[in-house]
Amino acid sequence: MTEIVRPTLLVDKEVCERNIGRMAVKANALGLKFRPHFKTHQSEKIGEWFKMAGVTAITVSSVQMAEYFAAAGWKDITIAFPLNVLEMDNINQLAGKIKLHVLVENVDAVNVLKEKLLHTVGVWIKIDTGYHRTGIDAVAFNETDVVVAAIKGREKLVFKGFLSHTGQTYLANSTDEILRCHFDALEKLKSLKNRYHARFPDVEISMGDTPAATLCTNFDGVNELRPGNFVFYDLMQQNLGVCQMEDIAVRMVCPVVAKHALRNEVVIHGGAVHFSKDSIRNTDGKKMYGRIIIEKDGKKILLDTMNYLSALSQEHGILKVAQSQFNQFYVGQLVEILPVHSCLTANLMGHYRTSEGELIEMMPRF
Amino acid sequence: MTEIVRPTLLVDKEVCERNIGRMAVKANALGLKFRPHFKTHQSEKIGEWFKMAGVTAITVSSVQMAEYFAAAGWKDITIAFPLNVLEMDNINQLAGKIKLHVLVENVDAVNVLKEKLLHTVGVWIKIDTGYHRTGIDAVAFNETDVVVAAIKGREKLVFKGFLSHTGQTYLANSTDEILRCHFDALEKLKSLKNRYHARFPDVEISMGDTPAATLCTNFDGVNELRPGNFVFYDLMQQNLGVCQMEDIAVRMVCPVVAKHALRNEVVIHGGAVHFSKDSIRNTDGKKMYGRIIIEKDGKKILLDTMNYLSALSQEHGILKVAQSQFNQFYVGQLVEILPVHSCLTANLMGHYRTSEGELIEMMPRF
Repeated sequence: MTEIVRPTLLVDKEVCERNIGRMAVKANALGLKFRPHFKTHQSEKIGEWFKMAGVTAITVSSVQMAEYFAAAGWKDITIAFPLNVLEMDNINQLAGKIKLHVLVENVDAVNVLKEKLLHTVGVWIKIDTGYHRTGIDAVAFNETDVVVAAIKGREKLVFKGFLSHTGQTYLANSTDEILRCHFDALEKLKSLKNRYHARFPDVEISMGDTPAATLCTNFDGVNELRPGNFVFYDLMQQNLGVCQMEDIAVRMVCPVVAKHALRNEVVIHGGAVHFSKDSIRNTDGKKMYGRIIIEKDGKKILLDTMNYLSALSQEHGILKVAQSQFNQFYVGQLVEILPVHSCLTANLMGHYRTSEGELIEMMPRF
Repeated sequence: MTEIVRPTLLVDKEVCERNIGRMAVKANALGLKFRPHFKTHQSEKIGEWFKMAGVTAITVSSVQMAEYFAAAGWKDITIAFPLNVLEMDNINQLAGKIKLHVLVENVDAVNVLKEKLLHTVGVWIKIDTGYHRTGIDAVAFNETDVVVAAIKGREKLVFKGFLSHTGQTYLANSTDEILRCHFDALEKLKSLKNRYHARFPDVEISMGDTPAATLCTNFDGVNELRPGNFVFYDLMQQNLGVCQMEDIAVRMVCPVVAKHALRNEVVIHGGAVHFSKDSIRNTDGKKMYGRIIIEKDGKKILLDTMNYLSALSQEHGILKVAQSQFNQFYVGQLVEILPVHSCLTANLMGHYRTSEGELIEMMPRF
């Protein structure tokens, strides 16, 4: 800490390893293949922590990210993003080297794959279980039939099954709602599996969202689990009731640069270019961008929600603090901020430091 | 365009040069020193376009950015962020090489400067003209007196004057409101200048926000102008009435990956890691993250506000489009998106392409 002079994203390896280990054990106990999503950390080094837990197959969110992790030695990668047909050259290069899986949700993409594939690729049909971002509606069997039919007849295109991201769990207002979303998605995916099982005995179901992967224990009929955020968790997950404060593995260290007594505000170097602008509602109904940890008598103390990161501009962060805490802050102090959305925060920072000061690099931006 | 297969930030050099030239001419005509803020583009190469327009002094938002532009040959830099006293080593190194100016707003920072400065540094007092982010309240003369008094008595610390960022103009609801914010700030800063003029005949006023710098013509008593965003502008500025559509110099090219006819949505590769989550209100009252340009019969057409980037997750963007336009979109198409906030978008992308395909690099993340 003493060498830090600028906004710095700290990662706690021990907490990460505990989060990874817990999820790996759970997946194993439930008989699920564990294919964690690496878009959260985007780091070759942190990838190694997963390897240590026995992980051999991963999920990524772009072809570029697949290239990065393939170069780092990963041999089994699913690109969990609707196939971008403009990247067929990159996909062919990857598929020549590793076991690659892609997502389709329309015949257009399937036709391009059939025309241009040079190597074998696994193909999942993306199913919309209610998040309404991408995928074929889970009950639109006629649409699914058409895409399944299109996939057939090309040896290099191996139909894997149905994949969903039940992202509406991130918007839930209670853990009960997360469970309801999950069971609804589960039922829909099981119906699909049953529908195609006779024709495709190997058809699989792949699910993956951190809230359900963490909280739920019923994955009946599911073959594969792809959560990502759980490696770090964040305030959003803690706020959802998905994790505890002590499960959050990243925090931003920020220098205090100014204080404004009349409005009980403390200015830090730490802004939108460090945290991203994702927020949650604080207990006072206002937007919250982070919670504050300060050191007091040699101990790290998490301040209550009367003290929080309340505003962000490009480089500035504003801490709204309780009157009683205001004097705990001073110019030149380093405070730690628990971020609202660890994926976007890590993506912005581009690297981490461990508590031992080790630099952990991430995927370059281009 | 034909070689683009992934989200790519295009910069139009011609539009940038026009924006830079216009502002440089205006500053010159008003007798203002022009010290543009480089946090928007963060690029050595784009910095050269400013040099061509006669710019020799710049503003940056962090010590790190000052180091980057000093290494690129800039010799006169203001770090427009409250002094981070933890970075005194870096500041001393910079001040040994270039004309460096820093901002203070409290005696704590001044005392650290006085104790640790090895080279001459210009010091501005940051004044809050109503944005209430940082700075001493413009009418809190007692506080200003204390900081001014603290600055004296150290030869290496040269008092420059009063600097403000009237950031509330970005939140205005009309161009009239921008003008009112500006004149209010102007009056406050002139009072300060008058108050100290007898004791400090060289005391200066520095202002800088793109809305006022673009729209206002009265800068009576002001010495220096520091706008930043104007080099690119963006939808936020266009929406404020500050610029025209044709003044926006950046656009993101994104591949279309899926279509959803039932809800008139088109999925693009282009998400929060490309655009940032800053939004404006669309005409329908909903959040808008960008406007859409498509090519039709060889011509680029800006679609109306019934067609817009309506949602972002990490890598996905959702275009909400008019029923009548839905068939204009197809899987494998490249669409162009005008971003809401060009500063944060450029910061996320980390590089640009010109229309000629030239790669333009930016400041590395660390």
